[in-house]
Amino acid sequence: MQPTTRDHCQTLDTHDPLAAFREEFHLPPEVIYLNGNSLGALPRATPHRVADLIEREWGQGLAHSWTAAGWWDKPRTLGARLAPLIGAEDTEVVVTDNVTTNLFKTLIAALRCNPRPTILTEQGNFSTDLYITSGAAEIAGVHEQRIDVDSPHLPTALAHADASVLLLSHVDYRTATLRDLPAITRLAHEHNTLVIWDLSHSVGALPIHLNAASADFAVGCTYKYLNAGPGTCAFTYVARRHHIHAAQPIQGWHGHADPFSFDADYTPAPGASRFLSGSHPLIADAALEASLDLWDHVDLTLLRAKSLTLTGIFLDIITAGGLTSATPHAPEHRGSHVAVQVPDTASGPAIIDALAARGIHAGFRAPNLLRFGFAPLYLRHTDAYDAATTLVDIIATETWRHHATTHNAPMS
Amino acid sequence: MQPTTRDHCQTLDTHDPLAAFREEFHLPPEVIYLNGNSLGALPRATPHRVADLIEREWGQGLAHSWTAAGWWDKPRTLGARLAPLIGAEDTEVVVTDNVTTNLFKTLIAALRCNPRPTILTEQGNFSTDLYITSGAAEIAGVHEQRIDVDSPHLPTALAHADASVLLLSHVDYRTATLRDLPAITRLAHEHNTLVIWDLSHSVGALPIHLNAASADFAVGCTYKYLNAGPGTCAFTYVARRHHIHAAQPIQGWHGHADPFSFDADYTPAPGASRFLSGSHPLIADAALEASLDLWDHVDLTLLRAKSLTLTGIFLDIITAGGLTSATPHAPEHRGSHVAVQVPDTASGPAIIDALAARGIHAGFRAPNLLRFGFAPLYLRHTDAYDAATTLVDIIATETWRHHATTHNAPMS
Repeated sequence: MQPTTRDHCQTLDTHDPLAAFREEFHLPPEVIYLNGNSLGALPRATPHRVADLIEREWGQGLAHSWTAAGWWDKPRTLGARLAPLIGAEDTEVVVTDNVTTNLFKTLIAALRCNPRPTILTEQGNFSTDLYITSGAAEIAGVHEQRIDVDSPHLPTALAHADASVLLLSHVDYRTATLRDLPAITRLAHEHNTLVIWDLSHSVGALPIHLNAASADFAVGCTYKYLNAGPGTCAFTYVARRHHIHAAQPIQGWHGHADPFSFDADYTPAPGASRFLSGSHPLIADAALEASLDLWDHVDLTLLRAKSLTLTGIFLDIITAGGLTSATPHAPEHRGSHVAVQVPDTASGPAIIDALAARGIHAGFRAPNLLRFGFAPLYLRHTDAYDAATTLVDIIATETWRHHATTHNAPMS
Repeated sequence: MQPTTRDHCQTLDTHDPLAAFREEFHLPPEVIYLNGNSLGALPRATPHRVADLIEREWGQGLAHSWTAAGWWDKPRTLGARLAPLIGAEDTEVVVTDNVTTNLFKTLIAALRCNPRPTILTEQGNFSTDLYITSGAAEIAGVHEQRIDVDSPHLPTALAHADASVLLLSHVDYRTATLRDLPAITRLAHEHNTLVIWDLSHSVGALPIHLNAASADFAVGCTYKYLNAGPGTCAFTYVARRHHIHAAQPIQGWHGHADPFSFDADYTPAPGASRFLSGSHPLIADAALEASLDLWDHVDLTLLRAKSLTLTGIFLDIITAGGLTSATPHAPEHRGSHVAVQVPDTASGPAIIDALAARGIHAGFRAPNLLRFGFAPLYLRHTDAYDAATTLVDIIATETWRHHATTHNAPMS
């Protein structure tokens, strides 16, 4: 194989059908931002959209904006706009709360839809997915079992588990391993087990076809590849066939069938709306809206192709440079970030700092992984080239030894 | 008693020690805004503070801002700033999620602290408080009992209930009846029952002394009298003595004792931090921050005195005008809004529209209550006078009959 050259990357940039999207983002000059898998970059339209909500809708419209500006329905209207990104229908998605809370709701709802004695989750999943599973299992009085979902023994594990539901991540937050969503969903269903997919590291990075896979439930965040801003609300997907009987426990007035009747008793709304609970932060919703304005124009097939080219360039160079990646080299098995192993935990944060000193923003996950996220909307092929060659140089020359450990981006 | 005159109200405005705060808000001209009990008005500093978070902290700082801009700790630092408004210590308050979700967490935590077979809540409480209590009772496998907390029989009800916890509102969302927080807390404790106070309609309207009352748990919203913007996160108070054993079920990485260890197992954080679950919307947090900058300078005793004067003026005029209020006339028994009864449900929205046509924003709650909220930070005594005399006029002359029913502010 010919080694990747910077000239070749420049040619790819010249012919990149997504190149124009980069202009839609505010990116600090001289920075190669590879933390988009942690916190997406700022769309240029966001400040104005948020200011408009604050100054016009809130400041002028005041409480009338709950209806006049469509505030009350934002969880539904934003959910409907997000639905095409995950292969869902309009009424199957709501934007609300955060991933952790949405996982709690979907876990309990799944247990109630399909009462069996065990919740399955995956070893090594992101911490909040593990913690919330333990919490849900405890309050529901069921067992929790952690399995290796990437093992060839997954069918055996499913066959023996007598599980109500399996919760797993579509793309692993550390290694970027991409799971076969349709195949695992089908396998789980063969064993009468529902599936909750955590799409946090895949939504906005690749096409997702939940309905085509007969998926049950899914959750995901909006502040990574979707670029909706720090902590902006997450989303919940509930397949239409589960709407009628899915009952989540955090039942509040926003999930009521007729909230302004102020009925004394709870009657869940139709559709995924029954997964709403209380008020949602409209100011942050405006940022999601600005972000979705961009996503309306993104071809997800082109996005995925560019993502794989970017991660492929990076992987080829670091591998040729003697580094070891924890991310699968096979394109069909990887998401949109690359994890690079460091020899020891102590070196990780120093390498991140050495990269930052050269304008490259990346992340570290204990004990031993550097993470480089490739958001195809605003990154160039030359960025992947420059980051990879700089990383190889920093490690080969050990210049990271000059960098004290300081901060590190803490998000998932 | 002398009738209230507009001249007298102007004199009160001239000598109002809180008058300068009005200049800190953006209010549409020619509007008397009496929906601040639903959605507070926009502080003038908010747009800039939010824009700074978006453009500098997010756009420039990117993922580094999780630590460098203090994002990760916002639920705690904002909670600590809010604590003096409710008579709490710094570590007893976190800003997170919404009232509904926070009620779920505190209800389950209370049941676990004090395992007894019943949850008590109040008849006629705000709908989400009722719904979440039913939801918590169902998942915890306990009974739910609704009582009249304003009845002289409350001691008997508490004695017979064998209740783990009583959830009630400090100020009733319809009538503005103010409950005696210290006395009810003491009474509940005598019967081995914990109390969760919903402060949504009292925080920012009057001084609250949770610790002085030996309170257990409390929740409240920030978008009414606190003026933090539509749907901006709520808060949870957990008394220090409950910190060590209070276990809430939506356990996530933000509530972990050492979140960046990515431990496989959950260990709750010390303090009220263990009531955090997942990510929080930083863009909305910035609006709360701008609001708290004002609250740092508010004397709550003066605030309460002005609130009572405003509602007193309004009550006196409408009573003299032949209208009936559902709000207690005794100052010690009322919050900061006034509920006026209309003869029939059909007239309510039309009266609201007739008021709006004359620049007065108020709300309606089915079946028969008009609500007028008096936010002392930005309202004048003449506003109370003008609103009351206009209301009396509209009802006496039946001009409301010309107004079709249209929209209505839907919040609690």
